[in-house]
This record gives sequence, C-alpha cells and structure tokens, in this order.
Amino acid sequence: MTGRTDCAARDAADPVGTLREQFALGSVDAQDLIYLDGHSLGVPPRAVAERVREVIDDEWGAGLIRSWNTAGWIDLSQRIGDKIARLVGAGPGELIVADSTSANLYKVLSAAMAMVNADAPARRRIVSERHNFPSDLYIADTLARAQGFELVLVDGHEMDAHFDRRLAILLLTHVNYRTGRMHPMAEVTRAAHEAGAIVVWDLAHSVGVVPIRLDGDGALDEAADFAVGCSYKYLNGGPGAPAFAWAHPRHVARMDREGWRQPLSGWMGHAAPFAFAPDYVPAGGITRFLCGTPPILSLAALECGVDSVLAAEPHGGLAAIRDKSVALTDLLIELVESRCHGHDLSLVTPRNADERGSQVCFAHDAGYAIVQALIERRVIGDFRAPDILRFGVAPLYTRFVDLWDAVDRLKDVLESGQWREPRFSVRAAVT
Amino acid sequence: MTGRTDCAARDAADPVGTLREQFALGSVDAQDLIYLDGHSLGVPPRAVAERVREVIDDEWGAGLIRSWNTAGWIDLSQRIGDKIARLVGAGPGELIVADSTSANLYKVLSAAMAMVNADAPARRRIVSERHNFPSDLYIADTLARAQGFELVLVDGHEMDAHFDRRLAILLLTHVNYRTGRMHPMAEVTRAAHEAGAIVVWDLAHSVGVVPIRLDGDGALDEAADFAVGCSYKYLNGGPGAPAFAWAHPRHVARMDREGWRQPLSGWMGHAAPFAFAPDYVPAGGITRFLCGTPPILSLAALECGVDSVLAAEPHGGLAAIRDKSVALTDLLIELVESRCHGHDLSLVTPRNADERGSQVCFAHDAGYAIVQALIERRVIGDFRAPDILRFGVAPLYTRFVDLWDAVDRLKDVLESGQWREPRFSVRAAVT
Repeated sequence: MTGRTDCAARDAADPVGTLREQFALGSVDAQDLIYLDGHSLGVPPRAVAERVREVIDDEWGAGLIRSWNTAGWIDLSQRIGDKIARLVGAGPGELIVADSTSANLYKVLSAAMAMVNADAPARRRIVSERHNFPSDLYIADTLARAQGFELVLVDGHEMDAHFDRRLAILLLTHVNYRTGRMHPMAEVTRAAHEAGAIVVWDLAHSVGVVPIRLDGDGALDEAADFAVGCSYKYLNGGPGAPAFAWAHPRHVARMDREGWRQPLSGWMGHAAPFAFAPDYVPAGGITRFLCGTPPILSLAALECGVDSVLAAEPHGGLAAIRDKSVALTDLLIELVESRCHGHDLSLVTPRNADERGSQVCFAHDAGYAIVQALIERRVIGDFRAPDILRFGVAPLYTRFVDLWDAVDRLKDVLESGQWREPRFSVRAAVT
Repeated sequence: MTGRTDCAARDAADPVGTLREQFALGSVDAQDLIYLDGHSLGVPPRAVAERVREVIDDEWGAGLIRSWNTAGWIDLSQRIGDKIARLVGAGPGELIVADSTSANLYKVLSAAMAMVNADAPARRRIVSERHNFPSDLYIADTLARAQGFELVLVDGHEMDAHFDRRLAILLLTHVNYRTGRMHPMAEVTRAAHEAGAIVVWDLAHSVGVVPIRLDGDGALDEAADFAVGCSYKYLNGGPGAPAFAWAHPRHVARMDREGWRQPLSGWMGHAAPFAFAPDYVPAGGITRFLCGTPPILSLAALECGVDSVLAAEPHGGLAAIRDKSVALTDLLIELVESRCHGHDLSLVTPRNADERGSQVCFAHDAGYAIVQALIERRVIGDFRAPDILRFGVAPLYTRFVDLWDAVDRLKDVLESGQWREPRFSVRAAVT
C-alpha cells in the first residue's frame, strides 16, 4: 500500500511539481489547509495581486480612460480568449471571454437553435443529462420554451437511445460536476453528428485540466459545434471570473455570411462600436458574441490564471497535467478505499481513469456532515446534494502528500464519529 | 468675468470639497492632468486598492471557497444593490447589481414585453430616441424583432407625438450620452403612463450625480417601471464594473405571483441555487434578475465606488452633489463661451441647468483633432462622432480651478491652431 513516503517521492519526481510555486499558497500552508476544491474555485496565482494592483494604480488611476487603448483593455476579451483557445484545441480568434457561463450558453444555444430552425426545423429536441449542471438546464429550458423546442433530460446511459431524427441539439457538460464522470468528447460528438444533431459542450469542469480538442483534432465529424466554459475552476481566474464562448469556425463563417446576430446584441459585439451608429451590425467572427463592457479587474486576474496553466507548456502541457491528474485521482481512490474501508463511502466517480475528470466523489448518507467535520480538520472539499462528497485535485498545486494527509484526516473524522455532532449538520449556502 | 482666484475661492467654500480626498488622484496630479471624463470612467477611490488586495489575499487566497459564505460574496450583488438603491429613490431589496447594462436591459425589456403581451397585446411600439446610447437601441431592436414589436426611433422633440395607443414601452436614457440633455423623469414618466405605456429608464449618465426618484417620490403615476444603469461612470466602480437592474415593486410582486422568469435564467436567480434541482424556479423579488456567478473582484471595487458617493450623505448628499454639478457646468459654459469665443465651438448641452446632467458638450467640425490636441495638453475629455467634444464634471473630485485651467489650455489649443497638425486626426478606438 502507498505510504506517505511514497507520496513524497512522487512529489519529488513530479514533472509539473515546480509549477506549484506559481501560486499564493502561503495562507493555505499557514492554516495547515489541504485544499481539494479547485474544481469549484482555483487558488490565486501569485501574479494576480501585483497585476491587479497595476491595473488599479497604473492603468485605471494613472491611465484613466486612455487605458482602453493604451493598456489594451478593449482587446482583453479576445486576448485572453486566444490564450484559452490553446487549451481547448481551438485557434486564435475563435474564442472570446465574456459574461458568465450561463449567459454564454444562452448565446450559443440561441445560435444552435437558429441553425436548426433554418436547416432541420422538424427536429425539436434538446437532449441533456438530468444531472447536468442545473444552470445549464435552466438556460436551456427557458430558451426551449421560448423557441418551441422540447428539453429532454435523460440519464447518461440512456443518451444513445435519443440519437435520432428528433434530436436537434445535444447539450452536455464534458465532466459532470456531481460525479466527475467525463464523456468521451470525440466519440459522443461523432455519434450525435451522425444522427444529424448539433453538439454544445460545457467545459466548466474540464478546461485547464483535461486535454480538449474542440476542433476534433482535424476530424470534422468529431469537432464540436459550440462550447462554453467557466474560468474560475481549473483556470484559477478568481471568484466569478468571466466565462468564455466558442463556436466552430464554419458556423461563424455562416453567421458572417448571413449577418446573424446573437440575442444579447450589446455594443461590444457590434462591427464598429465606436461609430455609435443606431443600427446593430454584428462584428465578424466570434467577437459578435460579446455584449456589454467587460469587468476589467476580474479579466486581469483571469489572465494570470490562464497564464498559470499555459506555464505548463514547457513541462509537457496539458498532457503532463492530465497524467498527474490521473495519478492523483487514482491515488485518492486507492487511499480512501483502503484506509477508510467500512465507513460506507461508495465511489461515485468512474474507476476507469479515462472516464473521469479531475475530481473524485463518494456518496455517503451523512455526506454534508462529514464534509463539514473535515473542513474543521482543515481539509476543504465540498458537498453536493443529496449525498455527494467532492474532492477535486488540481495538478498544478495539489501534491501527492496532500492526498495522503487529507485521507488521514478523513479517516480520523470517520473513525472518531465526530461528524455526528449536530453542529456539522447546519447548512449554509455553499458553492 | 470669473477669474482663477474666484474659482479657487469657490473650491475653498465647497461643501463637498473635502470628499475629493477619497480619491486616488496622486497620478493625476503628478501628470498635471485635468480629468474631465468621469462621465465615461470615474477615477479610483483610494479604498479600492486595499479592498481588492484584501479580497485577493485574505478572501480568495486564505478563505478560498469558504468566502462565498464567510466573506459574504454570495450576497454582494444584493448588498451593493441596496446601496445604489439609496441613490435612485428605491428601497432595500429592490435593486441588484449584475452583468452589464446591456444584459440587464435585455432582462427588463423582456419583462416589460411580457407585461404588454399579457395586458395590452395590441400595443406593439417601443419608442426610443434616435440618439439614445446605441447599445440600448441594439438590445431593443433585437428583442423587438424577436417578440414582434416595432422599434420606433425619434428625436427628442417628437417624442410626445408618439404617446398614443400604439405605444407599449418608452425606453429612454435619463441623461443623453452625446448631448448631456436630461429628461424630466417624473414628467415624462407621467405622460407615458397616461398614454398607457411602460417606462424603462437607463440611468447610466445620471446615477450618482443627479437626484433620482424611481419611486416617483410617492406618486405612483410618476414612478418608473424598470431601470438599468452603469456603475463605472459617476459611481466610480472601475472599468467595466457590473451594472444594475431595478423593477418597480408592484411589477416584481406580480412576477412573484405569476412565477415569471426572465430569459437569462441562470442559477444565481434561482429560488434555491444550492439545491441543484433540475427545474428552474425563479427567486422571489428582484433576485430573479440575477443570472450567473458574479465577478467578485470587480464587485468589490464597485462597492468602494458606491461608498464614495454615499460618503456625501452627511454633506448634503446628492442634492449637494447636484448643486455643485450645476455650478461647475454653468462655469464651464461661461468660461468656454467667454474665453474661446470666435473658434466655432457651439454649445450642444442645454443652457438651462434643469435640462442637463453633469457634462457639457460642444460641437466643432474638427472635434476629434481638438480633443486629441487637448489630451496632449493634459486635459482629458472625449469625442463622440460626428463632431461632439464632451467634458464631464464629477463634483466629488472636479474642482472649479480645474475648469479654469482646462479652458485655459483649450484656449491655447484653439488659438495656436495646433490641433490642425495631422497627427491629431489619427483615430484610435475610444470609449
């Protein structure tokens, strides 16, 4: 069985281990915290504090309004978008950072629906998973009602049965937020395309930690149609950092030809925002998916976060990050199952590493109380109703020894029965 | 004629003069800048740098995911909303901060259209001003097409002629971005209500510098129906700071009764976001207008900006701010007209102070080049096509002597003819 010494040895040999130095973990270490919630909120890169100070003092305070040009604020959505594109198998100019994941989903789903209405109006079904992230379902439901589509929610194993002539749009999150299960993106995309459907991927729980090829790595039938994603998880962009949107270049080219406008047709998506013309003319390319003025402070922090992932490129990039992620999740499963045996934790995340993202989830009837007791022992994971304990590993800063120590404390919580104390069952809002 | 000494005396006697100390103007002073662009981007309050540092280091870095609860991130949209409400004649719980002005307009216009469709489906016209801020027109146009309304753009003086049975929604910006002209909000609202229409106000260029009574000061027929606004101008919230939305409580009560959902039905506007239920149930009250996870760094900076305006409360509040704004704009008109006489600058902003906001605009055929030459002389105003020079005064930090000095430099630019140098005519993106 793996011991703490083995874990330390693996950290010492870790090819991406030095990237941990990029992060401001002084407070985490000072609190003796083990942070396993990077799937919800990544930690701050060290560069953020100085970069945001610079934006406030030098760009906002000294440059003032001129900084829209001189500090490049006006292109920040595209500049950061180009960086994220490198992480998801997309090209420069194909991806923009803006708004929230939900707002971006509203835009790209609207685009997908417009294509269906033009090309295959008899197809009226949007299929998604019952346990997809709810905000995606809320957006899809509202749009489906407004546009005369039917939102059909299924369990993952039932999905293939819905790949038929009624299927208009398949809306999936690459890695499920509750279970950590990862869809085989290329395979699912190809199957949905064979059925004649459009595929929209939410990359919230995979971008930055799993190699992604939105372009199908050259195979058009495996290329996604639309994608959105969140930047405050494995991209370490900071709480509520702006999200992103992508559309396949062939769809964007069609939008350009047809002058298609997305519903949130704000001025930043206009062809010439500073002409202040009364008529809306969508910008060419992905820029049409911008809406209002972007929050620059949050964007500046986000850029540091994206850079923290790009910094892995000389060390093997996302492939190396993924290798470590798999090793970490394998280890976490092994340690929990061996050291916490007999405490009714059942693995929810697939045992097969190819089928999971970078989190490991267990079910337990008292999941909430156990997570709270564990937080008191300075291990931060989180809980998702009704019974899921989630532990995320972020290969850029999670160490093998962290997992050993975390499971050690989990074992203490379970063996002591401390989680049964009533105070651990009092619910607060959690994210 | 007013001299510089008179200006200095007015600054010395200014009841809100000490509030200038709230702002980080060291760089402005060091550059010998005169900043007359607060109508586009307000300057940073001193408190921002430390507050954002605290959010990054202590809340994000040390508190991590727990800060959604422990640092109150989860309620920040409402908490700042309650503060802005005090500036616009609204009550606590009536206003939320979220997304961009354009996105918020999309939400509230959707609500207004739903009310029209239910109550007066024969009314199909949305009337706005041809020279309203274009992003508002773009959003209205897209929604009008989608929902079967007709967007009718008129000049201000033609507006009354459209208050008839066809009028569904009147969409106006309180203070016009190009001219500085201010609508008499209560009077226009009452007239539109008498015609049976719903009134939507954009407060971008008036919030924080003009007393506003969305509640009609108790007169229901003068109370607005919906409002949106921007927080990076006179609220000093920082570049691209999140915007706000308000709906009259009686409309919100109806939405509550009818379970109405806004189109951007993201999880933050759900009745129980952390229940992660697959079905969307809108939150009660104004919270239903939230969509995705808000950008916390930008929100934290915004709160400092709003606080900088609320700090005037012991000094007479918005009434005192408005008094100074009127005195400043009066002075600016007087100085330009007397000292820059003969240079073809024609006043665009109404001469009657009751009809203007806090900016003074002049037309000149070479407006762009003059603004650029003036920027080189360290006076920052801005330009709006085709020929408008805009000078905004922000009473919390603009001094009477600043205006004297600015006009002095403008006089130099005009008399020297330096603006005719070709380099001043090269356009860059400006905001």
